[in-house]
Amino acid sequence: MVEPARDTQAATKVVPLLKDELDIVIPTIRNLDFLEMWRPFFQPYHLIIVQDGDPSKTITVPDGFDYELYNRNDINRILGPKASCISFKDSACRCFGYMVSKKKYIFTIDDDCFVAKDPSGKPINALEQHIKNILSPSTPFFFNTLYDPYREGADFVRGYPFSLREGVPTAVSHGLWLNIPDYDAPTQLVKPLERNTRYVDAILTIPKGTLFPMCGMNLAFDRELIGPAMYFGLMGDGQPIGRYDDMWAGWCTKVICDHLGLGVKTGLPYIYHSKASNPFVNLRKEYKGIFWQEEIIPFFQAATLPKDCTTVQNCYIELSKQVKEKLSKVDPYFDKLADAMVTWIEAWDELNPPSGASAKVANGKA
Amino acid sequence: MVEPARDTQAATKVVPLLKDELDIVIPTIRNLDFLEMWRPFFQPYHLIIVQDGDPSKTITVPDGFDYELYNRNDINRILGPKASCISFKDSACRCFGYMVSKKKYIFTIDDDCFVAKDPSGKPINALEQHIKNILSPSTPFFFNTLYDPYREGADFVRGYPFSLREGVPTAVSHGLWLNIPDYDAPTQLVKPLERNTRYVDAILTIPKGTLFPMCGMNLAFDRELIGPAMYFGLMGDGQPIGRYDDMWAGWCTKVICDHLGLGVKTGLPYIYHSKASNPFVNLRKEYKGIFWQEEIIPFFQAATLPKDCTTVQNCYIELSKQVKEKLSKVDPYFDKLADAMVTWIEAWDELNPPSGASAKVANGKA
Repeated sequence: MVEPARDTQAATKVVPLLKDELDIVIPTIRNLDFLEMWRPFFQPYHLIIVQDGDPSKTITVPDGFDYELYNRNDINRILGPKASCISFKDSACRCFGYMVSKKKYIFTIDDDCFVAKDPSGKPINALEQHIKNILSPSTPFFFNTLYDPYREGADFVRGYPFSLREGVPTAVSHGLWLNIPDYDAPTQLVKPLERNTRYVDAILTIPKGTLFPMCGMNLAFDRELIGPAMYFGLMGDGQPIGRYDDMWAGWCTKVICDHLGLGVKTGLPYIYHSKASNPFVNLRKEYKGIFWQEEIIPFFQAATLPKDCTTVQNCYIELSKQVKEKLSKVDPYFDKLADAMVTWIEAWDELNPPSGASAKVANGKA
Repeated sequence: MVEPARDTQAATKVVPLLKDELDIVIPTIRNLDFLEMWRPFFQPYHLIIVQDGDPSKTITVPDGFDYELYNRNDINRILGPKASCISFKDSACRCFGYMVSKKKYIFTIDDDCFVAKDPSGKPINALEQHIKNILSPSTPFFFNTLYDPYREGADFVRGYPFSLREGVPTAVSHGLWLNIPDYDAPTQLVKPLERNTRYVDAILTIPKGTLFPMCGMNLAFDRELIGPAMYFGLMGDGQPIGRYDDMWAGWCTKVICDHLGLGVKTGLPYIYHSKASNPFVNLRKEYKGIFWQEEIIPFFQAATLPKDCTTVQNCYIELSKQVKEKLSKVDPYFDKLADAMVTWIEAWDELNPPSGASAKVANGKA
């Protein structure tokens, strides 16, 4: 049986990589006591907390953390009518944090994720591993059988073309979960007791042309390279679907990374996922998605972007058109989602004007 | 520092899976003392030994193994003029063993590969793990972030389309190596002391459309599903190239598996690779391949097979035509190789006539 690490306070003193270049984005509806365990790893960084649900509720953050917190009123104030693209009563609201960040890198984590231990019992500094993943290249064009060739003790194997060994910039680092695996409601119902105890000591690039189910629980990305594609869609309150926010972002992101020649890594680091969500509630949120994904995935597998789409924004707007054209017949929801994708990009560009342009910058509150 | 397992004789008694349906193919130029260590795992199975080099040399096989042994004279006698497609003075000759086998499954291993230990110190029954890999489906159409969903304690994660959860038949299981990694000559020269000590507890499907460097050192496959594609090409004596035999087979096999909807898995099991081959000798064998692979790999990445190619043989003949047409301009060698590919299929069909046809069956010697 795996257990979370208990002694993170005693962990070796960490040299905080990218201290001033990375924000940690946390969506939450409760007090952030879980940060106590992460203190040795997260305290040097700035947090962006996106409060979901009732804005009148006070969220307490443990002392000593540097943070800004946004509730629904803040989102409405900052985005005005464009706030419609940010989900309410769903952790999809986290993407607002990506938008207001001014840093190059984002790490996002759920508030039910604790520090995991590696097989030797050492607490895993998930953020540090994500940073290592993001700062080393990816290899999407050919598979390396010894996994990430840039890790210590590994390399490209015989038969790997030398022209591809430089790799491409890594845009996304997707981490995994010990204890409660990220299963859908039907699998949760069928296997209520299954726990993930297998620590797989690998990081690998998801090959070009291959889609994957991106989970938003333990995820890092390069905002400058891919930020505008990390839209978590319309979920939760007033929407017919939930728990597909990160999946949607993953599909769009992967198609755009493939088009732009950027890499997506998955594998290490693990976090300890403490509590399974209610499978009955999840089933209600998911069931339309379970049908729809059978059409959405072939859509994304077949999607191609024109050569002249050279920025993430251009790619994303183009993808929104294809969503409207091809997925609206699946359900009118996709028509609304396609519009929201455009609104998201407009809002992103408003908060993140091209350098040199006169900026209408949002002010968060600390 | 990793070490090979020493106590395999004491290993738990193995129930031999597929005992009468699998042959172990070993190419060699020396006495097969390495089998002593594998005895508890291999003894229930039939061995096909392909003796490379001087046919007058006697290869001794430890007592108690059930085997047939073929030397160059046997190959010439059995195949006649078609023996020209089987390499000489190169371990590529192993593919003759695939051709004369009458079993459904093949496991092939090099004679410098020993039993590895898992992180708990237990000797790894590589063959048993390959059989498990081959007997469970593959998932080439979508990536599962918790790796092989059919393993105990694992499953498909949230967002994995239900329509794809049945998987496809697995044609190939590609195992890995602890201690000496399978590096090319330049990497061997640059990192002479690098050893692989990382035990990655994973098996995964190489996605459709992605090529990989297939190593023939520790490999299993389903002969009925993919056998005729497992041609190890023209290497060694009289040829301008070596050490690309398994790579060639891997590229062809993967393209054909993708076309036919078959799966290729990589990861577990590990063997302990005992001795690095001489990097200077390797460089001489490889250097043309190092250039050529820069053109061969894009060729295979772009290769498509017509819909009416529904058997491995048809696919392979079609591929041989494309090799002749597109790669002959790289070097006249590929013209010869394309012809050898056709000869290989002719020889395969002669030794493996469609059931019902009158068979001209080869007789090996024990």
